[in-house]
Amino acid sequence: MAKARTVLRKRAFPVGDVRRYLEPGPVVLVSSAWRGRTNVMTMGWHMVMAFSPSLVACYIWEANHSFDMIRRSRECVLNLPTVDMLDTVVDIGNCSGADVDKFTAFGLTAVPARKVGAPLIGECHASFECRLHDGRWIGRHGLFVFEVVAAHVAPRPKHPRTVHYLGDGEFMVAGDIVSRRARFRADRL
Amino acid sequence: MAKARTVLRKRAFPVGDVRRYLEPGPVVLVSSAWRGRTNVMTMGWHMVMAFSPSLVACYIWEANHSFDMIRRSRECVLNLPTVDMLDTVVDIGNCSGADVDKFTAFGLTAVPARKVGAPLIGECHASFECRLHDGRWIGRHGLFVFEVVAAHVAPRPKHPRTVHYLGDGEFMVAGDIVSRRARFRADRL
Repeated sequence: MAKARTVLRKRAFPVGDVRRYLEPGPVVLVSSAWRGRTNVMTMGWHMVMAFSPSLVACYIWEANHSFDMIRRSRECVLNLPTVDMLDTVVDIGNCSGADVDKFTAFGLTAVPARKVGAPLIGECHASFECRLHDGRWIGRHGLFVFEVVAAHVAPRPKHPRTVHYLGDGEFMVAGDIVSRRARFRADRL
Repeated sequence: MAKARTVLRKRAFPVGDVRRYLEPGPVVLVSSAWRGRTNVMTMGWHMVMAFSPSLVACYIWEANHSFDMIRRSRECVLNLPTVDMLDTVVDIGNCSGADVDKFTAFGLTAVPARKVGAPLIGECHASFECRLHDGRWIGRHGLFVFEVVAAHVAPRPKHPRTVHYLGDGEFMVAGDIVSRRARFRADRL
């Protein structure tokens, strides 16, 4: 078994700022469609919940223009941008679909999805088509539980340089990949 | 506004493997206490949901020994390990608290928490004391919504080298930090 390191001295930290440490899953661009219009939002709050069915929970603030489009259409696409798209990621978050046609404004390519009405964003490294699986906590917590029904991934690079929001305008860029495959119990991978 | 890049060619990808792209939030070590015993589990599925109160949703598999300890005590601590603890992180996930006293076996230091009964792990970069805020989806989805009631963070390094599980035994280590603070609309930080 591995040996632990030394005990660290710590300071009290504001509980409302724990995102700085717990949030850094990859930022995604959420595309949606409703009544002939499309939209894109920047999102950092999501989590994998199951493999089969493939479930992903997402928090969407009700003030977002995408909130109603996704709630009504019961579909969206989670698109994975990489660090070369970081300025676009920020700019998309800075404006609202109520005022701007974001696909046009940001020169994004809307690629038809296979199973949902929302378009894929062609420039992103990967796109995951989602259908609403459980909407019972949308009202209580703004929580949408989606099932990923189709997934599209660029074959290279194997490990895209995703961006991970830390709050306060800072992002962590995906770093080195290390494997501990041989160390895992086979049923714990 | 930023210019987008070229459209990428993509391949179909197994929907059950989307964790390879969507999961990489930081792996945490979840410590718990119940009836005089403590335990630690390795966890990768969590998401920030709100700032005030500070809410974090966590998926815990009911087969984990920690599941009942946390459900009954309604408390836990989310501890943030760094890459130098990676072997310990894997080894903790390889065994069960039903068989092993993990604090002892892995040489971890149990530091008393301020507001909850579960101990902090002294060796971790940060520790977040949590109380169960909403347990109504524990049965349906294994989802615990916690409120972070106290937070402890080592002052240095400012950006710890957290580890982010990609599935299949691979981890992404936190990489470069980039700021776009000046580009954000102030109300979107």
